[in-house]
Amino acid sequence: MKTIGIVDTTFARTDMGAAAIDELKRYGTGYKIIRRTVPGIKDLPVAAKILLDEGCDIVMALGMPGSKPTDKMCAHEASTGIIAAQLATNKHIIEVFVHEDEAEEGKLAWLMEQRAREHARNAYDMIFKPERLIKNAGRGLRQGYEDVGPVRER
Amino acid sequence: MKTIGIVDTTFARTDMGAAAIDELKRYGTGYKIIRRTVPGIKDLPVAAKILLDEGCDIVMALGMPGSKPTDKMCAHEASTGIIAAQLATNKHIIEVFVHEDEAEEGKLAWLMEQRAREHARNAYDMIFKPERLIKNAGRGLRQGYEDVGPVRER
Amino acid sequence: MKTIGIVDTTFARTDMGAAAIDELKRYGTGYKIIRRTVPGIKDLPVAAKILLDEGCDIVMALGMPGSKPTDKMCAHEASTGIIAAQLATNKHIIEVFVHEDEAEEGKLAWLMEQRAREHARNAYDMIFKPERLIKNAGRGLRQGYEDVGPVRER
Amino acid sequence: MKTIGIVDTTFARTDMGAAAIDELKRYGTGYKIIRRTVPGIKDLPVAAKILLDEGCDIVMALGMPGSKPTDKMCAHEASTGIIAAQLATNKHIIEVFVHEDEAEEGKLAWLMEQRAREHARNAYDMIFKPERLIKNAGRGLRQGYEDVGPVRER
Amino acid sequence: MKTIGIVDTTFARTDMGAAAIDELKRYGTGYKIIRRTVPGIKDLPVAAKILLDEGCDIVMALGMPGSKPTDKMCAHEASTGIIAAQLATNKHIIEVFVHEDEAEEGKLAWLMEQRAREHARNAYDMIFKPERLIKNAGRGLRQGYEDVGPVRER
Repeated sequence: MKTIGIVDTTFARTDMGAAAIDELKRYGTGYKIIRRTVPGIKDLPVAAKILLDEGCDIVMALGMPGSKPTDKMCAHEASTGIIAAQLATNKHIIEVFVHEDEAEEGKLAWLMEQRAREHARNAYDMIFKPERLIKNAGRGLRQGYEDVGPVRER
Repeated sequence: MKTIGIVDTTFARTDMGAAAIDELKRYGTGYKIIRRTVPGIKDLPVAAKILLDEGCDIVMALGMPGSKPTDKMCAHEASTGIIAAQLATNKHIIEVFVHEDEAEEGKLAWLMEQRAREHARNAYDMIFKPERLIKNAGRGLRQGYEDVGPVRER
Repeated sequence: MKTIGIVDTTFARTDMGAAAIDELKRYGTGYKIIRRTVPGIKDLPVAAKILLDEGCDIVMALGMPGSKPTDKMCAHEASTGIIAAQLATNKHIIEVFVHEDEAEEGKLAWLMEQRAREHARNAYDMIFKPERLIKNAGRGLRQGYEDVGPVRER
Repeated sequence: MKTIGIVDTTFARTDMGAAAIDELKRYGTGYKIIRRTVPGIKDLPVAAKILLDEGCDIVMALGMPGSKPTDKMCAHEASTGIIAAQLATNKHIIEVFVHEDEAEEGKLAWLMEQRAREHARNAYDMIFKPERLIKNAGRGLRQGYEDVGPVRER
Repeated sequence: MKTIGIVDTTFARTDMGAAAIDELKRYGTGYKIIRRTVPGIKDLPVAAKILLDEGCDIVMALGMPGSKPTDKMCAHEASTGIIAAQLATNKHIIEVFVHEDEAEEGKLAWLMEQRAREHARNAYDMIFKPERLIKNAGRGLRQGYEDVGPVRER
């Protein structure tokens, strides 16, 4: 039995954590889930690290950085911390960020949910089916929007 | 009995630490407070880490970055350090920054105090009522200005 | 017998890991290879560190940062993490990044493969023939595109 | 008996270390001083950390970043390292930087000396009189130029 | 007997490591030298840290960042890593970077060599004659180009 941690924010404008959990349940079994919510994306790194230190095999850190320059900097700081948390624990944290200005209001919730779902499958595969990722190396995969695909077939 | 650390600066232009402490007292009980003040925001990371290592369960780090490009860089450095301090201690530091140019002079003190108060409630909930945060996941909450709210109801 | 780790991404648009492995096999012997694939470049630092902690003598971390400002920031975060992973393990990680906007579509796969191949030779030399690198100090070598060469002969 | 470390640079264009030491002697007693000088600001973080590990209770790190974009980046790197050194030692380093373009040539030496002196008093207070800092929380204090003062009285 | 580590790159366009070694030999005795060469500047931090962990008392890390924005970012990442390597070892790494666009082609090799030589003397002084650096505190010294000098005499 593996454990998957889910941590998201009250700042985001749709419930990304719920989308990730729903998708995990549709996609596979053999794990239990621990969920936390923090105020903003800069609170994600330590929340994810605590989950990993408590025994999670992988964590999904979901957030929606705002559109202002200050928000962009926050996203950078959060991402840097998320990488540091992984290096300190030797486990993966799948960062799922949707920038508020990546899509217009009407499409934003869709994108946030879709990206959360596609990365939930990545998180699952990373701990249960790593060979699926190797098979897709260099295939130009994207999460949320359509895959770009490879430049040319090898 | 929990302990909440409060650290703010002499650089800020209103007493954010006092506002946070006042709000904590209105909001709940079951904790004691330790307060420190440092010159500027770049002194916050180690001050917060010392408080956490001395036994605080959570720390609020409050500051007012100035409006010049150099000040923005200081804020970035301070935030990066605050995240590193959290990863080193496995505890949360709630960063409460109000950029001097986020509001005009007449509204700045209000914003600093209001954000300090709303984050004081977050800090309290994180150690006493974490389920309140999960309930608000993805609700577009903000501190200081009005909540933005979710993109759509789920 | 040495061990060389190879980690690449599903985001990249050509199979950089396969190119690196093929080149290593042409270039020399005395090692075995362990391969991993992760979703994106920000997942590379911990993947590389895990490989080093599992016993790899060197790791190649291959990726293709996208062309948008957000992608550039991701590349910066990944690179910072890759350096931190090296400092934590006292082993080298050869970062092989080709920015999507470094070449037009028609030349991009060639560049990604070529750079992967030339850095594969660097990785091999670093663990088997470090004196080859000293001999080339200050020679203006490049990977992918043509060498620039020294400013003047000494 | 406490120990205060002073580290400055040969790059700076006035002797900031001497100014800090002179001010400390005027301001209070009960400490001894250890002084080091390094070439540039990027050498300050480890110099300060060595002093702290040798037993200093606090260190002042004084420097004058140049005015070019590369110099600004150096200042950022130095500041990031100074924060990391503090987190590694749980002690404060008071960073005293005067950017070469903060004042015209005629006023630059004054500013460097004045800021060094005012931060020397901060450093002293932080280890001997921390309650003085709490009393000044949110008072809009500045070092070098005049204090800005609070937005409004509480 | 002290040990000085020298690490440079195959990317640079003149042999900076050789210049540093030549200058050290002219300047003083009492040390032995260990030399390494890596592909690019981002490989310098761990190479320098390995040398320090192997017993070097100080390391010179020499490189020539390219002129493109991506290269500038690489320089920033390398510098950040070099500072982290120092903090992890409590020893100095003298970073000697010459940006490719700091001088026109005709003067670039001169600048790279000259800066390497002047910093070689700094490295020597830091481990053998630290009092020479204190004597030059605030004297506006530069490496490569002419010294700027102090703003005013104290």
